[in-house]
This record gives sequence, structure tokens and C-alpha cells, in this order.
Amino acid sequence: MQKEPLPLQSIIYDAASDAVDIIDQTLLPHQLSHVRLQSLEHACQAIQTMQVRGAPLIGITAAFGLYFALRDGIPLGRASSTLAATRPTAVNLRWALRRLELAVDGADQGSDTAARALREALQLQAEDAAACNAIGDHGFTLLESLWREKRKRDPEATRLNILTHCNTGWLATAEWGTALAPIYKAHAHGIPLHVWVDETRPRSQGASLTTWELGARSVPHSLIVDNAGGHLMQQGEVDVCLVGSDRTAANGDVCNKIGTYLKALAAADNDLPFYVALPVSTIDFELPVGVGQIPIENRSADEVHRVVGVDEDGRLRQVRISPEGCPADNPGFDVTPARLISGLITERGVHEASAAGIAALHPDRSGSSEI
Amino acid sequence: MQKEPLPLQSIIYDAASDAVDIIDQTLLPHQLSHVRLQSLEHACQAIQTMQVRGAPLIGITAAFGLYFALRDGIPLGRASSTLAATRPTAVNLRWALRRLELAVDGADQGSDTAARALREALQLQAEDAAACNAIGDHGFTLLESLWREKRKRDPEATRLNILTHCNTGWLATAEWGTALAPIYKAHAHGIPLHVWVDETRPRSQGASLTTWELGARSVPHSLIVDNAGGHLMQQGEVDVCLVGSDRTAANGDVCNKIGTYLKALAAADNDLPFYVALPVSTIDFELPVGVGQIPIENRSADEVHRVVGVDEDGRLRQVRISPEGCPADNPGFDVTPARLISGLITERGVHEASAAGIAALHPDRSGSSEI
Repeated sequence: MQKEPLPLQSIIYDAASDAVDIIDQTLLPHQLSHVRLQSLEHACQAIQTMQVRGAPLIGITAAFGLYFALRDGIPLGRASSTLAATRPTAVNLRWALRRLELAVDGADQGSDTAARALREALQLQAEDAAACNAIGDHGFTLLESLWREKRKRDPEATRLNILTHCNTGWLATAEWGTALAPIYKAHAHGIPLHVWVDETRPRSQGASLTTWELGARSVPHSLIVDNAGGHLMQQGEVDVCLVGSDRTAANGDVCNKIGTYLKALAAADNDLPFYVALPVSTIDFELPVGVGQIPIENRSADEVHRVVGVDEDGRLRQVRISPEGCPADNPGFDVTPARLISGLITERGVHEASAAGIAALHPDRSGSSEI
Repeated sequence: MQKEPLPLQSIIYDAASDAVDIIDQTLLPHQLSHVRLQSLEHACQAIQTMQVRGAPLIGITAAFGLYFALRDGIPLGRASSTLAATRPTAVNLRWALRRLELAVDGADQGSDTAARALREALQLQAEDAAACNAIGDHGFTLLESLWREKRKRDPEATRLNILTHCNTGWLATAEWGTALAPIYKAHAHGIPLHVWVDETRPRSQGASLTTWELGARSVPHSLIVDNAGGHLMQQGEVDVCLVGSDRTAANGDVCNKIGTYLKALAAADNDLPFYVALPVSTIDFELPVGVGQIPIENRSADEVHRVVGVDEDGRLRQVRISPEGCPADNPGFDVTPARLISGLITERGVHEASAAGIAALHPDRSGSSEI
């Protein structure tokens, strides 16, 4: 545990000490505290306890974990399957591991393998930052045109209202974020935005992480409970929904934080655009359909029963909201069918949430099927 | 504040001390504590701070409050408008006040007026208990047939899965409850039920009250976050949704606890029945349409920022989950359009959520338009 202030980046490799520094996201927004990862075990623990979370950041952390394992002489296969088991739903995790496996394939044993793994992990991190940057640019163009249209319909309009779920900002990625990247860029370009931030129970990443990120950059926002979004859409208080993805199927179905599906239904019922921002690395090209086909992580019932926050003395505490002995169920993700999605904002442009839209994003294809 | 155990009823008039005893629902499920109401001010405070909540119970409490006011020489008009202002959305409140106003109309000043008011308040309480009992019977028939159909489709089925939102049990009414009444009756008749209980942020009445009620009567249930219902429906884990209503418009639109609309959308998307259980007293026959027309109570942002529960030492505490200074918005209710509702379970049978279905429930009509 290192307490010195570090630059605000979700993950940093420190060459001098051959270690990785992360922000312990379970303590935000109440404490900004960094944790140093130096081994496979550290990396697994950080992913499992959700000190790091967000599909892209999980992938990058796993890549460094695999590097630590190889450096420390742990066999590749064992290290890789240990890491893969930490979170079953996010596809980036396995994608990152495969990338590293391919990179070290054929290398001699020992230091050469580890060096290659490190290079690939750093490369993967840089690529994610670049992808998020590009997602931000494409999404910005979209928000800009939504704002232009809104002003045309209503010259008195004072802001573009965006609803988001969970945390998809720089905390969840190497830089920028996925669904928050367009928001940061649009805000920087002077588009008057206001973000409705879903609390995102059970772990409340919206209340604890997204509000903290937006507040730090002075992006206007309001926290709401997960129940409120449908009502706000019905009242005309939402112009567009913008969320992330943990795994995207080949037909455009999107698996994301539990509750995303409900917001997509409400957007469709109110004729509002619902966009998903995602790096191509979250696409599972092997998976034909998402609904019913993606293993949904069932997390501990404790997350439902208990809520973490600070008490009146600023002390971090956990309180139980339900009766002792009460049963609970805690699925971590849900799947939003492609038919409810207006488009996928990727680093390669905005694509249709459909088999054709996804096929055009395949690494072997470079054609443009942008919408 | 009275600490002696009382029978488990949400509100009791004690003739000997001319006072009303309620359960302080803000302390459940952690403490069962009773509060004695003896004045208009007490009644207003109990409603405002949500020591009592639930449309029918709010109405009954307001009726006793008006009685206290008249007994204490407070002018009827002033007392009535003070009570009406405590919660703007629930229609039972104003309905109960009107009932009492009519009952005392024409009476001589003084004790006669107060005596009439008390009689009417007790009458109103008895009627609510009878209405909930009848809702339970009609809803039981419905659940019984859903269970029969499920067993026909799938002879291996082990339980009927019901999803509910907020608290609609005996705590919310004079007895039985609205949406929980059919569940209690079906459970008593041996139908194997399992209830998915929505947490119901921001005040978590599902987590704190519904789980407590169901646990006390050994009705199988699982607590879930408000985000989970759509996923469970998509996975085939829900057979029917059953919720209450705070105000029902003449076209069948239902205003209920924030988040109800999202579950109705998910039920429709998965071809699942979505029923609303309500006493006729929640119907606002004067209101042609619900969507956009019902004043939605905007409650304190603190309810979004803070969560109440017990710490590891069993001490009741409030924790803050968001950053200091974070803005928040807190609409208390939403409106579910009639088109998403399979039927209204009332004390006068199951009616269509439509202008015709509601018209048949008008006090002047006794015709049967049951579905």
C-alpha cells in the first residue's frame, strides 16, 4: 500500500520498481488511495475485490498480472487460467490474456518471455488509451449533432441531457473512458451538457465513481437512483442514453452492468437514442447471440444486503439494510438486445448494433460500415 | 414514544387514551418500535417523516389526524389543508380528508363534530381492511390460475415466481396489504410461491419492510437490487409482477413508487403479466390521464445520498455513498401507462386498466366489467 499522491490515471507501470500502481476504487469517493501490484496474486486480488473494475481496465490489469507471473517463473497456462477465473463475464480479460499468450508464443523460456509479456501489456494499455480517445471523438460528433438537433427543435433548450449507468470513465480504462469519453470531449468543446448518473446498485459505481470523475472535471451532473431513469425519460428530461459494454455479441447484443437493459427499454418506449460506447476488444466475435448465452457472474449476496459509505464522522462504514437471514440474489450483468440499441460507438466509428455492424469491426476487416 | 409490544397492526386506535399507535416504519427491520399519535401535529409529522407510508395507511392516519384537530378545536379547513400538504402524490390522503369533511358536514360545532370524525376514521380503517381482504381473494384466484397454467406448461415447475416493488403489505394498509394480500392468501392455500423483492431505492422499503413482512410469515423470497428484475424476467425467473398504486387515473394509468414503470416495461418485453393491486380509494376518477398529469413528489436529495442500516455492532447508522457537494434529484413516483398493465386487482374484482375498466369501478356504478 503506497500513500504518496500519484498522477490521476487508473493504472501505471513503474519501471524503476517493476511494479504497477492502481487506485483502490473500493475506497472512492471517500479516499484516494493507491495500491502497488507486484505479483500474479496481487493482480488477481485487485480484480476479484474490484479495486480495479471496468472491462478495459480488468484486461490491462490481467496483462500485467500475467507478466508478473512469467517474470516470477509461474507457468503460463496456470497463470492464465487463474486470471481468467477472477471475473467470468468481461471478455476483455480473456482477450488480453490471449494477446499476451500469442506475444510470448515461440519465445525462449525465462527473461525473454517475461520481457515480451511486459512489452505487450504496455502496448495493450497504450492501445486502450488510443481506442478510448477515438471513441471520445466519434461520440463527440454524435453528441454535437444531437445538441444541434435539439436546439433546432427548441431554441430555448439550455442543455443536452445524457443518462449514464455505472462507471465508464477514465477509472474504467487506460485513459478517457468509454461512454464518458464523448462526454468529456463534448464538455471541453463547450456543448452545455448535464449528466444523469444512475447510482448503479449494488456496488453504486455511479454514486461513488462517476459523480467523482464528473465533479473533478466540472461536468454538470445529478445523481439519481436506478429507479428514476424511466420517469425522467417520460418527462422529457433525457435526450440520449450512453453506456458501456462488458461483452458484445456478434449480433450486437450488449452485456453490461445489471440494470442497463431496463434503461434501454425505457429509451425505446420514449423514442430516445440509446448508444453503447465500447472498444472493439469487448466484442466476442465467436458468440453469435448475447441474450441467454453469456455467463452472468453471480456475485455475493452481501453486496445486496450491505452498503458502504462514510458516517457523520467521515469514517468508512458498511451498514446492513435488510433483516438478518434474509435471502438475496445478485446477478452482476444483464444483456440488452441489439434491437434496443441505436448504435455502437467504437474506436472505428459508430456502427449498427447488428451482425453486419459487428462483422465490419472484425480485426480482419477494415471496411467502413459506419452509420 | 411507547416501547411496550403491541399487536402487529400498522395502526390502532386506543379508546382508553384517545390516541393512535403506529409502528415507526423508519426503524424497521432493525427495531420494532411504536409511536403514539395524539394530535394533528403528530399525525402530520408521522406522514411527512414516513413513519407511516403506503397510500391506504397515509389516508387512515390523516383521518385520525383530522379527528384530533377537530377534537382540539382546530378549524376543519386549516387542519385539512395542513394534512393534504404532507404528501402531494397519494390520492388516498385527499380522499380520506374529503370523506371526513362530508361526514362532519352539517354537524353542530364541538364534540359532535369530533365524534363524527372519529367514527368516520374508524369506519374508513375497517373499510380498508375489508377492501384489502377482498383484493387478496381476487388476487389469490389469479395467482392460483397462473400456477395451474405454469404446471400445465411445465409439470416439473416447483414454484410460482412473483416480482414485487416497494412495500404493499399490512404495513402499508389497515390489514393484509394490497399487492401482498394475494401473496399471503396464496401462500396460506399451499401454492408454492417465491417472491423477488425489489430493494426499492432510495428508501429501500423492499429491503427493509417487504422482506421483514414476508420473512415473518415464512413466505419464500429473495431480495434483489432494483436493477435486477429485467434480467430475471429475460431468464424466465419471473412469472408475474404484482405491485401497488398510489394514484390511479381514469384511463387506468398507475402512479406508483419510482421504478414501477421500468418493471412494467420489462414485463411487457418478456410477455409477462403485470398486475396492479389497489383499493378503489386510490382511483382519481377526476383525472382523465395519468402520464404527465400527476404531481410527482420531489423528495430530499439526502435520500439519494444516504443509506440507513445497522453497522457491525447492530447500531442504526446513516452512511453517505456519494461525494460531498454532489447534486442529486429524487422523484418519488413514476407513472406506468395503462397499456403496460394486464389488469387492476381491486376489492370489486379484477378490472381492465382502461377507461371502461375504471368507469365500472365508479362508486355510482355497481356493474361488473371484470376480466
